[in-house]
Amino acid sequence: MDATTNGSKQERSSSPKIDGPTNSMVTPLLTDLYQFTMAYAYWKAGKHLERAVFDLFFRKNPFGGEYTVFAGLEECIRFIANFKFTEDEISFLRSSLPPNCEDGFFDYLRGIDCFGVEVYAISEGSVVFPKIPLLRVEGPIAVVQLLETPFVNLINYASLVATNAARHRFVAGKSKVLLEFGLRRAQGPDGGISASKYCYIGGFDATSNVAAGRLFGIPLRGTHSHAFVSSFMSPDEIIDKSLRSSDGTGTCEDFVSLVQTWLRKIQWADSLRGVFGETNQSELAAFTSYALAFPHNFLALVDTYDVMKSGVPNFCAVALALSDLGYKAVGIRLDSGDLAYLSIEARKFFRAIEKEFGMPGFGNMTITASNDLNEETLDALNKQGHEVDAFGIGTNLVTCYAQAALGCVFKLVEINNQPRIKLSEDVSKVSIPCKKRCYRLYGREGYPLLDIMTGENEPPPKVAERILCRHPFNESKRAYVVPQHVEELLKCYWPGDSDKARVELPPLKEIRDRCIRQLDQMRPDHMRRLNPTPYKVSVSAKLYDFIHFLWLNEAPVGELQ
Amino acid sequence: MDATTNGSKQERSSSPKIDGPTNSMVTPLLTDLYQFTMAYAYWKAGKHLERAVFDLFFRKNPFGGEYTVFAGLEECIRFIANFKFTEDEISFLRSSLPPNCEDGFFDYLRGIDCFGVEVYAISEGSVVFPKIPLLRVEGPIAVVQLLETPFVNLINYASLVATNAARHRFVAGKSKVLLEFGLRRAQGPDGGISASKYCYIGGFDATSNVAAGRLFGIPLRGTHSHAFVSSFMSPDEIIDKSLRSSDGTGTCEDFVSLVQTWLRKIQWADSLRGVFGETNQSELAAFTSYALAFPHNFLALVDTYDVMKSGVPNFCAVALALSDLGYKAVGIRLDSGDLAYLSIEARKFFRAIEKEFGMPGFGNMTITASNDLNEETLDALNKQGHEVDAFGIGTNLVTCYAQAALGCVFKLVEINNQPRIKLSEDVSKVSIPCKKRCYRLYGREGYPLLDIMTGENEPPPKVAERILCRHPFNESKRAYVVPQHVEELLKCYWPGDSDKARVELPPLKEIRDRCIRQLDQMRPDHMRRLNPTPYKVSVSAKLYDFIHFLWLNEAPVGELQ
Repeated sequence: MDATTNGSKQERSSSPKIDGPTNSMVTPLLTDLYQFTMAYAYWKAGKHLERAVFDLFFRKNPFGGEYTVFAGLEECIRFIANFKFTEDEISFLRSSLPPNCEDGFFDYLRGIDCFGVEVYAISEGSVVFPKIPLLRVEGPIAVVQLLETPFVNLINYASLVATNAARHRFVAGKSKVLLEFGLRRAQGPDGGISASKYCYIGGFDATSNVAAGRLFGIPLRGTHSHAFVSSFMSPDEIIDKSLRSSDGTGTCEDFVSLVQTWLRKIQWADSLRGVFGETNQSELAAFTSYALAFPHNFLALVDTYDVMKSGVPNFCAVALALSDLGYKAVGIRLDSGDLAYLSIEARKFFRAIEKEFGMPGFGNMTITASNDLNEETLDALNKQGHEVDAFGIGTNLVTCYAQAALGCVFKLVEINNQPRIKLSEDVSKVSIPCKKRCYRLYGREGYPLLDIMTGENEPPPKVAERILCRHPFNESKRAYVVPQHVEELLKCYWPGDSDKARVELPPLKEIRDRCIRQLDQMRPDHMRRLNPTPYKVSVSAKLYDFIHFLWLNEAPVGELQ
Repeated sequence: MDATTNGSKQERSSSPKIDGPTNSMVTPLLTDLYQFTMAYAYWKAGKHLERAVFDLFFRKNPFGGEYTVFAGLEECIRFIANFKFTEDEISFLRSSLPPNCEDGFFDYLRGIDCFGVEVYAISEGSVVFPKIPLLRVEGPIAVVQLLETPFVNLINYASLVATNAARHRFVAGKSKVLLEFGLRRAQGPDGGISASKYCYIGGFDATSNVAAGRLFGIPLRGTHSHAFVSSFMSPDEIIDKSLRSSDGTGTCEDFVSLVQTWLRKIQWADSLRGVFGETNQSELAAFTSYALAFPHNFLALVDTYDVMKSGVPNFCAVALALSDLGYKAVGIRLDSGDLAYLSIEARKFFRAIEKEFGMPGFGNMTITASNDLNEETLDALNKQGHEVDAFGIGTNLVTCYAQAALGCVFKLVEINNQPRIKLSEDVSKVSIPCKKRCYRLYGREGYPLLDIMTGENEPPPKVAERILCRHPFNESKRAYVVPQHVEELLKCYWPGDSDKARVELPPLKEIRDRCIRQLDQMRPDHMRRLNPTPYKVSVSAKLYDFIHFLWLNEAPVGELQ
């Protein structure tokens, strides 16, 4: 890259314009100060244009599992496609670095963009594993270092929460509707918005977050809160009581009375007798008002006072009144108490209504549950048995309460074609050197067998050809594999101004489909919650030898005294 | 509020213009869909202008502690001061709500602003406790409901991370420098930026996050990473080896040789003999380059290869060479291993250098430690003894790993002057009804004794006058208090277009000072990490009676069969 000619490269690029990051706070200043002090030191040493390769990877799957969903790539690409310092940003940097930093450095920064950088990445929404680079970023070292913090920031949480969503989906099962309700408890506004996006990728069906719905086209869901219920006093306060029938042919002038008639019928019904006495009148008023506003979409929160003594009978009275006018109520939401028990009791009540009043389908009313749900409570509900159709999950999902951070790192693996290794007394922290290629090898039954990394110039693994796959650090762990299908994992998502072809950023729906398909394709023992089998991540024999040659070369020889 | 005249209210307000939220993603759509479905139902029922009072509060202090730092208020006020739907947002809402919603509702939304709303709040940076409203929000119910999600979102994480920062400060002690290094692991870009802001409020000294430094004027800190070290091969590659002396009177033409001379002196020094053999040359090259770039600010990361065998001697050689030219090195950073042991060994080495070469002050070189620090590891370091001067804390701090969410809620306490109570089988979830005033009562020794809530029109507690303070739900817990000082907690931060005086939003530094002062002022047993004493939160005798009257009125009478 030649800093003096950067200015025109954005125009020279033949690719269509890529939008900037969703959050306008993602600017070149969204990085650690030391990226700039290092950039200055590189520049001062005349080293800033040296070509470096960094791998972005994580070392351990989150949540005690053996898989991770990779997400956040699109935002990284949108960031670098528009990477450019403003004059204000340059001034701020000048005031933040020591006063004797030379002017030439700021001129250099002024000219920087990411058209000298190449990013190879695994496709967003893929199932991924430790040590395999999610991104391989190559370019002038000073520029690529500046990308470290924003890339890691954009990928860490995205992948963590997408994985969390996938794990919730796994426990809930495919037939349940999963709703992300986390905005209010998320770690900041953007935590909320990106949670909605990445939970959708991970297999959720909808969100309550209107801004995320608008930004990403995610389906929106929501009804009313407890405050809505307690804001009413009694049905007397409802002024406009009329409701047109669903087919528009008639109007019920006093829907409030119709509801009350149904409530009395329920109270007197033989099959339901004795289940409840007087229901709460402010709740009845709230439900009736809500139905008047949304006759096609009546879904009521039934636990403000007492689910079975008040909420469910009140709901049924309104639902039956709606039914008289040709509307079909949607169902109820439970937000407290014993969700397994209450859902079963509510279902029984709905079925009894269906039978008592000859209302086909009434028993299948949707039951939504919320209230501090997580993987464990979903699992416990499954074990107890329940009648919940849809789960609304907030806090535990979006804050990743069970493990609030993923530890993605960004490590130098090569500079000026010289491989670099980062040693550590902890073997799991030793980095795998060299610019690499990565492959997923599939077996006869269609499952992925393992991932393998090779040096950049090694011949790729071939279908039906035996290849030795070695654990990168454990000499004795190795296996011959004969793949039935070979998938190259790293694709060129950002060629800079090289003439390599750029893989287009897919729409969100496609990322989500990839995620769901890949999760489905995994061998079940990797996916189970208890003691899952680790998926194998390996290196070629040649790369293995090279790692260990470098390691011995770099490590100091101990001296015992 | 009259929806038809809203348009001109922004101009009528006599207060100076308040900037919008820091994050431009904080718009009126950053809320849950059900706030809009409820708004529609309120509007349809002609109830949308009814005046409601909501309390925003939390139920339990985080991190097993007995205090919380309140933060996020400024962003809430900036949000409502600029609350207005755009036509695009209205169109999106129209497409998101059921198709038969009436046009009049969207006309109503078009006219909404927050000049009919009043917000009373505790000052940001205050130490706060469960059940006491942090915000009391009063206004037309449909509008105030729309504020629930963004307010809770803006306050939950802000208060959580400020509290986490305060807890880390408490364990680290006042004399240590605390640096927030969390951006890369934060939950999204905004999680990073707001973490930096709120950790500063909670008592941190600086951040690595450049964007936060720019937005909020927080001091910035940072040096270099392991990649910087491993990007060098040997000192031979340093081209420009000259360094002017600190006073500008001379130039050392070969700083690299000067460093190497010092390294040999250290290796041969009697008092240091045998401590190490050959140091790593790529590390030496990196340190030398960094010193050439930042002679006034030389701080080196010393654990890339081996702290005591390579990093510390290499650092000392460069620091001594700098000293020859009149520069004073800053110190080292440790990022792995046994931080207590390594800091002590490094300190010993610095002191030996001071003695051996007659370098006054060299022994006091700053030692910074990082690597997955949290409250527990800080506490363990204190117990073991260490020589660390500054701590860089990231993941655990900003993701609030120990407890990733605070449970702030927003509850209706009054509508049309009618008090409302939210019941629950779990007593801790029963809300305290009525529009309230809140006071902090201080004792003779200057400590806060307890907080008390009263009805809005009760006379305030008076200095030197005995007042009965009751636990809101436990009949037997009550105490007479004679306050030496009474502080009203809720102040008017947003009067809307009423003629009440608005408390100005203070600058960040003032919020931070308040926080540090208030934390200092607490009785120590409330603050300790192990088994802290709960701080008392009480209600007046009159409010107590009223709560229990309402409760009995609303609760269904059980029937055992």
